[in-house]
Amino acid sequence: MSIAERRATRAVRAGTVTIGGGKPVVVQGMAKAPAWDGPAVLAQVERMAARGCELCRLAVPDERSLEAFAWVAKRSPLPLVADIHFQHRLALGAIAAGAAKLRINPGNIGGPEALAEVAREAIAAAVPIRVGVNLGSLEADLASSLGHTAAAMAESALRQVRVLEQLGVEGIVVSAKASDVPRTLDAYREISGRTEWPLHLGVTEAGPGLAGAVKGTLGIGLLLAQGIGDTIRVSLTGEPECEIDVAYDILAGLGLRRRGPELIACPTCGRCSFDVAGAARTVAGYLAGMHDPLVVAVMGCAVNGPGEARRADVGLAGAAGGRAVLFSGGRIVRTVSSEEAVPELIKEIERLRQGGISEVSDR
Amino acid sequence: MSIAERRATRAVRAGTVTIGGGKPVVVQGMAKAPAWDGPAVLAQVERMAARGCELCRLAVPDERSLEAFAWVAKRSPLPLVADIHFQHRLALGAIAAGAAKLRINPGNIGGPEALAEVAREAIAAAVPIRVGVNLGSLEADLASSLGHTAAAMAESALRQVRVLEQLGVEGIVVSAKASDVPRTLDAYREISGRTEWPLHLGVTEAGPGLAGAVKGTLGIGLLLAQGIGDTIRVSLTGEPECEIDVAYDILAGLGLRRRGPELIACPTCGRCSFDVAGAARTVAGYLAGMHDPLVVAVMGCAVNGPGEARRADVGLAGAAGGRAVLFSGGRIVRTVSSEEAVPELIKEIERLRQGGISEVSDR
Repeated sequence: MSIAERRATRAVRAGTVTIGGGKPVVVQGMAKAPAWDGPAVLAQVERMAARGCELCRLAVPDERSLEAFAWVAKRSPLPLVADIHFQHRLALGAIAAGAAKLRINPGNIGGPEALAEVAREAIAAAVPIRVGVNLGSLEADLASSLGHTAAAMAESALRQVRVLEQLGVEGIVVSAKASDVPRTLDAYREISGRTEWPLHLGVTEAGPGLAGAVKGTLGIGLLLAQGIGDTIRVSLTGEPECEIDVAYDILAGLGLRRRGPELIACPTCGRCSFDVAGAARTVAGYLAGMHDPLVVAVMGCAVNGPGEARRADVGLAGAAGGRAVLFSGGRIVRTVSSEEAVPELIKEIERLRQGGISEVSDR
Repeated sequence: MSIAERRATRAVRAGTVTIGGGKPVVVQGMAKAPAWDGPAVLAQVERMAARGCELCRLAVPDERSLEAFAWVAKRSPLPLVADIHFQHRLALGAIAAGAAKLRINPGNIGGPEALAEVAREAIAAAVPIRVGVNLGSLEADLASSLGHTAAAMAESALRQVRVLEQLGVEGIVVSAKASDVPRTLDAYREISGRTEWPLHLGVTEAGPGLAGAVKGTLGIGLLLAQGIGDTIRVSLTGEPECEIDVAYDILAGLGLRRRGPELIACPTCGRCSFDVAGAARTVAGYLAGMHDPLVVAVMGCAVNGPGEARRADVGLAGAAGGRAVLFSGGRIVRTVSSEEAVPELIKEIERLRQGGISEVSDR
């Protein structure tokens, strides 16, 4: 099969969520509002939760942000990860405030005693810790001995894991992020072969717009396809909830997880006999927020349309004279005019939903 | 290495472009304007060419569209592929009109004699032919004996190849498109192992917006990473030039080809000390259309910023007090205020460009 079986990892619990241990890949988000602005951060967390985010990371760079973190933690619909650098007191504070997980760098948290104190409190509160390396902040000795390579990234991440293991930490998640895809892949593969802790996937600094989505999809998608990765975060410059959508698009594309319906729309070409792009947008809007695992096809012409429309749960395929053929459950329902096409498609979907959709169609 | 060496394929020439034979992966586009509207089609071809498209496909569904095809072919900056179904006279007309390549389905072009005539004219004009299967239009016998599987898709595509080979066609390109990624991967892998002709990659009916880009990136990216694929077309519902951008984003992400500069922007988080998203958008606009293979970093904070900014050709990293540090060639140039940050970055890029950029930095 083209998608490899997932590699076995240990299960790590973060609040209500389990990462690794054969559980479905966990979708993470990260709030981007100013860290001290509790209400703004909470609003983002709630928007991400509504899109299917399961675990949300908040940066906690100072005391004021820690107060906001505590305020959000009391109200959050999701377990929260506190992302902390430089000041171990903030990590202790975040644990006390109800963090479900910490993300720290053992090398910059304030020395061995500070780290030991954080580890002790995390163990006591059953809070796991994510460690990991960003190529941009690789330790100087590794950068000079191994260069800015995947091997150096893996060694850096595994050093951090060993430090936490020696302190008795019982839940560890590991990440290794470079801004370029090939090194990210190599680093995760190396780490995956050398530890049983679950892995957090991401391609950091991915860039704006579609370019960011493409880069993140390549890095995360190529690893998931090899069975590597227990939780993912897509990084985009923009609204945090878009990151959740792209995460699910990746998981659905690989057949690993589905969030709601799938819309198959042809890209349109000179053969189109009705306005497929417009119809696809309308149908996408109608399907947004729906949780049934329906497959819906909107196809413009008689070349590929009928086949796709027939194999979907519900579908439209363009026909001669600007008309369209409506399919449901693999059978032709009727031919409709181009104005009727979308309303009739929606009517058919509603009919199916009322009948109850028990499983994903065999596509 | 994480990105496999490219599989050896035969070289196939389409006008001025060579597909396969170890040449760089060719970026294809497809016009979406009504096929009979020559000026509208030409305008799209020109916009795609400006974004780096190298070969452009036009649908030719009827006589009127054939006239438009001939009109566009005389004026096109790119070699054109004529996409023809059902009527072999249109294929003959497209060859006569200067098509650089044909895309046909031997099974629906009008019978063995019609196909032989098309093959004869294509051979005489040195016009290669793309054949291939779309899961939506699989032959009935294969669908019933093998099901809608990757194996059936591969068998269908290879049947078409054998038919053309028997007719003496000297340039063949093969494609196999399903709307789901795992079957697309499996079908291409199977075909790649069984023919030396170059492969055209695409995930058809990819859906609107980011979801389409994600699905296309998964399918095309996973295959390219395994060394499979000689020409690619990304299918998106929307403007055809966006497909070209995403194609290059995929190729650049895998380190296979670069079109102009690369912008690394952090996704922003609660640590940001200046408006990274705004700065990244401004810088992206400035870089658009530039062809120098520069790496530019725009980073918000002191955690990962300096490392990334240092390894880019030119970079900004957020610093305390809303200021930013400007890097060039791995060295700090100066610290600037947040208002100066983008203008100073651009000034530094212009300075570098005037000095001449000889190679991609070692990242």
